[in-house]
Amino acid sequence: MAESTVETSAGPLRADHPSYRLGESLYLRAARCQPTERVPVWFQRQAGRSLPEYRALRGEGSILDAIADPATAAEITLQPVRRYGVDAAVLFSDIVVPAAAVGFGIDVVPGVGPVAAEPLRSRADLDRLPELDADAHTPYVLETVRLLAAELDVPLVGFAGAPFTVASYLVEGRPSRQHELTKALMHTDPALWHDLMERLAAIAVASMRSQVLAGASALQLFDSWAGTLSPADYGAFVAPHSKRVFDELADLGVPRAHFGVGTGELLDQMAQVGADVVGVDWRVPLSAARQRVGAGVALQGNLDPVLCLAGWPAVRAAADRILAEGTQQPGYIFNLGHGVLPETDPAVLEQLTDYVHAYRPAHAGQPE
Amino acid sequence: MAESTVETSAGPLRADHPSYRLGESLYLRAARCQPTERVPVWFQRQAGRSLPEYRALRGEGSILDAIADPATAAEITLQPVRRYGVDAAVLFSDIVVPAAAVGFGIDVVPGVGPVAAEPLRSRADLDRLPELDADAHTPYVLETVRLLAAELDVPLVGFAGAPFTVASYLVEGRPSRQHELTKALMHTDPALWHDLMERLAAIAVASMRSQVLAGASALQLFDSWAGTLSPADYGAFVAPHSKRVFDELADLGVPRAHFGVGTGELLDQMAQVGADVVGVDWRVPLSAARQRVGAGVALQGNLDPVLCLAGWPAVRAAADRILAEGTQQPGYIFNLGHGVLPETDPAVLEQLTDYVHAYRPAHAGQPE
Repeated sequence: MAESTVETSAGPLRADHPSYRLGESLYLRAARCQPTERVPVWFQRQAGRSLPEYRALRGEGSILDAIADPATAAEITLQPVRRYGVDAAVLFSDIVVPAAAVGFGIDVVPGVGPVAAEPLRSRADLDRLPELDADAHTPYVLETVRLLAAELDVPLVGFAGAPFTVASYLVEGRPSRQHELTKALMHTDPALWHDLMERLAAIAVASMRSQVLAGASALQLFDSWAGTLSPADYGAFVAPHSKRVFDELADLGVPRAHFGVGTGELLDQMAQVGADVVGVDWRVPLSAARQRVGAGVALQGNLDPVLCLAGWPAVRAAADRILAEGTQQPGYIFNLGHGVLPETDPAVLEQLTDYVHAYRPAHAGQPE
Repeated sequence: MAESTVETSAGPLRADHPSYRLGESLYLRAARCQPTERVPVWFQRQAGRSLPEYRALRGEGSILDAIADPATAAEITLQPVRRYGVDAAVLFSDIVVPAAAVGFGIDVVPGVGPVAAEPLRSRADLDRLPELDADAHTPYVLETVRLLAAELDVPLVGFAGAPFTVASYLVEGRPSRQHELTKALMHTDPALWHDLMERLAAIAVASMRSQVLAGASALQLFDSWAGTLSPADYGAFVAPHSKRVFDELADLGVPRAHFGVGTGELLDQMAQVGADVVGVDWRVPLSAARQRVGAGVALQGNLDPVLCLAGWPAVRAAADRILAEGTQQPGYIFNLGHGVLPETDPAVLEQLTDYVHAYRPAHAGQPE
């Protein structure tokens, strides 16, 4: 097996940072495109409403209240790790947390999603997006990360919303299918658009950087709705800002993943902005994704989360195909192509985790 | 310029069918991949709420009532042809009209979309999908087509919903983002799924065939939501039925277009089932679409309809890129990548139509 490439003596991370202790974990090796004897697996939105223990803990309160309570947020993060035995934990938080914390004025309404009472309409609204001081604005997030870093024996994935996807919520004021106002803003007032994206890039960098320094061993930038853009618009209005985010996190030395849905035609650009791992949704076969992303970047995905509602035989058939495609070479992390749906039976994900762990990757060579 | 390949003496169409008279029209030549001196242009959902003359005529009644009145439906179909001077008319109708007409029990609720009070849940529900007798079930559609065929000097595009997309409405009972129930049905009861798809394929064939015999000069199969499927699921559960639809319309000799959104990874299959024209949404550059579809199939698309809300400069910039890509070879029809949004300013589409018509295709050679 290849040696770990993690250095213990350089960079901004303290010597006791979990990413050193976990450097040989399945997730971190696969994210570095190193061979693994088993395929790492975790599930986007694995912590959440599909778990009875989550529903019991959360009750009906605001998700932002749960996130602001480190003991609760840490416990919710741990629940799926205990239940499934997945190879990564993902911080229980929300992509609008930093914007809410700096005072933009945005809430997460149950059954609706992020809602801004006063959406971004003019340059003056940028004043509601000052720099994020993570210690001052989101101390509860950092405390949650510290609690988890002490507890977990798998990497903790920290994250932030990408500038475009966060901008879409701030501009539309609520979840949107077409992103009409967002696209209109980028085309009709590109100067304001780019200034907005710079603010949001700075906030994403500050948030993710603080999460890593507090103990997260990997990062994921969620550009969930980037797939609504043409490749030309993505390149002109989004990619430069996402690139800045990746560039300014490079010195941390932790894997940086990049995710969106419907991004088949953007995968090349989403890798080129500096991602170490690129998420792929179920629309794109992993073999096609590999061609578009090129070598040296790990892939993550891509089971249709809706199949988990169709029972184990459908899940197993899709997993067989995905595992065969994904493991043609090192650098593959099993996941869904989008988040776990609330109606999902946890028993299916338990079975799926075991199934992925029992699979022998084509690149693995001889057993140890 | 190439000779028309339309024969006037064979096949099921009468000698006075409009497709002969219009055989040299821009749309029909481009759909046959013949060179054109100008680029044909029309807009999906060009007849509809974006037009003040439509709103004045329609009022607040049910869309199914307007469709059932041939004089009204014909007038609505003609409105955008008069206003924009587009190169095709598209029948004013709805993809659930045949299923409603045979008695499934489905309505189109304003502001919501197709709603079935009793969604398809079991084999017994197939009894609500008998064969379509177009003369008996949808005489008003045929009368509308006849009125239009007598009036129009551009081809009339008839259409039907593809089996998968219609099935998704019947199974979900209302518009759905994830199509959970539809995907669960195809995987958990494939026998029922395939029987349902066979019924819907037969209905689509009967409907489109009757439209052509009444005077439509082209057809489009709308599989709007096929892009929610993985390529594997599309191939196993959808493509055979869509292929049957195309096969059973081949003898008519009119161009058969195939459309969906988010179908970047399905374009090859959507062409291979027998389409003469494949619609492309704004996510996929036409040059990439051409590679996936291969030669001998025309492309149609692919301006992001949301850009029409961002004003003329954004539209023009996108149109420049699309026209340059689309006209590298014969067989290209300008359109949006999805339907006209209700908020669209008709002045933008007027300007866009003129702009496309003024463009000189790369393949056009010397002016006539």
